[in-house]
Amino acid sequence: MTTQQLVNQIKKKKSFLCIGLDVDLNKIPKHLLKEDDPIFSFNKAIIDATHHLCVAYKPNTAFYEAYGLKGWKALEKTIYYLNKKHPEIFTIADAKRGDIGNTSAMYAKAFFEDLGFDSVTVAPYMGKDSVEPFLAFDDKHTILLALTSNQGAYDFQTKIVDGVELYKQVLEISKSWENSKNLMYVVGATKAKFLGDIRKIIPNSFLLVPGAQGGNLQEVCKYGMNSDIGLLINSSRGIIYASNKNDFANAAAEKAEELMLQMAELI
Amino acid sequence: MTTQQLVNQIKKKKSFLCIGLDVDLNKIPKHLLKEDDPIFSFNKAIIDATHHLCVAYKPNTAFYEAYGLKGWKALEKTIYYLNKKHPEIFTIADAKRGDIGNTSAMYAKAFFEDLGFDSVTVAPYMGKDSVEPFLAFDDKHTILLALTSNQGAYDFQTKIVDGVELYKQVLEISKSWENSKNLMYVVGATKAKFLGDIRKIIPNSFLLVPGAQGGNLQEVCKYGMNSDIGLLINSSRGIIYASNKNDFANAAAEKAEELMLQMAELI
Repeated sequence: MTTQQLVNQIKKKKSFLCIGLDVDLNKIPKHLLKEDDPIFSFNKAIIDATHHLCVAYKPNTAFYEAYGLKGWKALEKTIYYLNKKHPEIFTIADAKRGDIGNTSAMYAKAFFEDLGFDSVTVAPYMGKDSVEPFLAFDDKHTILLALTSNQGAYDFQTKIVDGVELYKQVLEISKSWENSKNLMYVVGATKAKFLGDIRKIIPNSFLLVPGAQGGNLQEVCKYGMNSDIGLLINSSRGIIYASNKNDFANAAAEKAEELMLQMAELI
Repeated sequence: MTTQQLVNQIKKKKSFLCIGLDVDLNKIPKHLLKEDDPIFSFNKAIIDATHHLCVAYKPNTAFYEAYGLKGWKALEKTIYYLNKKHPEIFTIADAKRGDIGNTSAMYAKAFFEDLGFDSVTVAPYMGKDSVEPFLAFDDKHTILLALTSNQGAYDFQTKIVDGVELYKQVLEISKSWENSKNLMYVVGATKAKFLGDIRKIIPNSFLLVPGAQGGNLQEVCKYGMNSDIGLLINSSRGIIYASNKNDFANAAAEKAEELMLQMAELI
């Protein structure tokens, strides 16, 4: 998917919501556990109920790998279902990969070619040649970790390197990589006050922002929005686990609509 | 596996060789492609021919994920085979994972519990709470990226943070994390001259060193070896692709023995 197609979808739906599909068998409705593939059944119901409210889905690969072969199969079925039924929706493999060149090329093959995701999250620690194999794919997007939402972000990401924070070095240096037009960045919503500075370095790139709602969402938009919107706001547990009863899909849709309406006001 | 069991194995075999199982269907002998599971058949033959010469195997997850469900199944079969036939051998999931706490916990479950690896490689960019869920497992080992072998290592890892290089900050700060006794570190053999400084910060930890042989191996041992040996030297393509004919397993064993004999002299 091209960036322009994503922007068009956002403007049409008046939503820049991304729904995180972090499926935990301990949290989904009990009646689904009797099904052949409870993870896919859960995802399908969530997607069917929410696809008109969001512009992206983000399965987190950890939650699939934790269930071994069955988990990987559910991941495959989920992305194939999305690509077949809703090709207009942007898909993110939240995988946080990154390795030496020939290995990153295999990860890129796995997520872009074999599974058919539009994008994958990648860690920057190993530098340029660990990221460029992902960037080499046309109309695919590499979402580089910049400033994450967790407490551990302060361990290294905000440390001063050559006069500026490490995460700003990541933003600045990555701009010079080949096909950097295919880069997006992860910035945690807990770091909204940093977004002004971030936009000075990367005014045009899309940002994937986990965990913004309410006042925090307003703040993220105030400092992070650009003329293309330029934001994908992710919510996972707040939407998909809104209920663990039979009505879980409707409950998820209600939560998604709440966020989507907040977004529509901010566009 | 405890660290002491690994040390005992190294001393018994006079080897600290790790064999990387990075299986590429374009590189394995053509006759294997007719088999039901060419990746596992290849791995099994390599393991059967080399297990007495090495102390560790390191499947690189990218090479399995690139083949989708079949790849993940081959990874499962490989680790189950290793754990059943050669429980004394240390196993490394070279996965370069790392995410926020609850997600890292799912990755730890995937690699330590579901697959049963002894260790997993983890990227440090997201800091303490992204690594501690791995460290929480007794007798499992978290191999943190410190200074990698690729050119991109110079993009961020060697940059000066608070007066010292970022990779040294990673070494120093990670020592204070809970259960840091379960940490090992990745240091590329191309960075052998850095090992003296590294050993000042982490004198006792095991280091996973990809790509050392010949004069370079001597240098790595000179600066990196400690009283427990403290090194795992990985070789992947140099061993497993020594031949792509019918004799591939024997050819791999010959290459592994060459390296193992160099190691025996250095112990």
